Amino acid sequence: MTDQQLRVCFIGDSFVQGIGDPAYQGWPGRVLAAAGPDVTAFNLGIRRNTSDDVLARVWPEFSSRTAPGADHRLVVSFGSNDTVLEDGAPRVAPARTLANLTALLTEAARRSVAVLVVGPPPVAMHGDEYLDRLLTLATAQAEVCASHGVPFIPLTAALAADLHWNAEALAGDGAHPGAGGYTRAASLVLEGGFLPWLTTPQAAVRR
Amino acid sequence: MTDQQLRVCFIGDSFVQGIGDPAYQGWPGRVLAAAGPDVTAFNLGIRRNTSDDVLARVWPEFSSRTAPGADHRLVVSFGSNDTVLEDGAPRVAPARTLANLTALLTEAARRSVAVLVVGPPPVAMHGDEYLDRLLTLATAQAEVCASHGVPFIPLTAALAADLHWNAEALAGDGAHPGAGGYTRAASLVLEGGFLPWLTTPQAAVRR
Repeated sequence: MTDQQLRVCFIGDSFVQGIGDPAYQGWPGRVLAAAGPDVTAFNLGIRRNTSDDVLARVWPEFSSRTAPGADHRLVVSFGSNDTVLEDGAPRVAPARTLANLTALLTEAARRSVAVLVVGPPPVAMHGDEYLDRLLTLATAQAEVCASHGVPFIPLTAALAADLHWNAEALAGDGAHPGAGGYTRAASLVLEGGFLPWLTTPQAAVRR
Repeated sequence: MTDQQLRVCFIGDSFVQGIGDPAYQGWPGRVLAAAGPDVTAFNLGIRRNTSDDVLARVWPEFSSRTAPGADHRLVVSFGSNDTVLEDGAPRVAPARTLANLTALLTEAARRSVAVLVVGPPPVAMHGDEYLDRLLTLATAQAEVCASHGVPFIPLTAALAADLHWNAEALAGDGAHPGAGGYTRAASLVLEGGFLPWLTTPQAAVRR
């Protein structure tokens, strides 16, 4: 840990929010619990949010949560809703999702805010064609992140193959898992390097 | 439960946010866990926030979290930071805290949003004189709520007398408890009628 107060905003969709989790922690609460009790954390997930929605609110909501002298971090996860078809077209086209990601990372760099991007979890009920499109989007998100020197933790393929994630979602509303699925997602985020990212001083994270 | 999607925003300070809780649930997460897994909940607590700060952001942040046809609720808790002295004066004078509460309840009624107010928890390290002023403020908050037909759940006196709340805070940063204190706060909110309020259709709650 740094000596500074560590402030982390998690922004994204219902999977960030933790919809369906009986403990109301979601994967962010679970990875934070692994970090110890001293993080000042904010969960800004909103169900149905696309990357358009996130981009529209990220900076005003983030700015209300800053403090002088604190070390501010931002964890971003979107794409699962962008990829859902409405009237035969994705809610947000892939090129636009990637442009939104680029805009967010560019502004974060301008503000000297360290960012971590977490890949979009799959919506079980939307099936294989949706999953193929989401995997393609996630790969492209990883490339955008790499070009900005921002870490990306993939979730899509691993959760699509996870028994808890799918069984809990399909036994529920078709999209949102329960404690088992969120625990698995949290494990993937931790295995992907969340704690080293969180505890490395910001100047060394941003390149 | 109503058939409508139930959306609840919790807004306030660090005690709403759950600072110091190793499970990152705070009292809101703990009362929601008692409500079952089907609530769409948003924790909008921000540490150091006064009633001025809450009033400045409540409606934009709430509006981003509404959905067509949903049953929208708002749980509000502030005053602990207002009452802290800076340069010999409270950060927000009691009359202004109450005016902020009145403004919030008036706008909530205009928007047909059902509100529940939770009394301000005490900051252990600030001692008896602070506690006396906070108890007076909490009593006045209860009166404002009564005059608006809004339920108020007091926490101040019970938490000031709670061993976990005080011991955990004084063993930590002087203000924020751990799991024991937040569990006690959640129990008080549940005993104060949170679940009946949450599960009563909105029209019957608002008078």
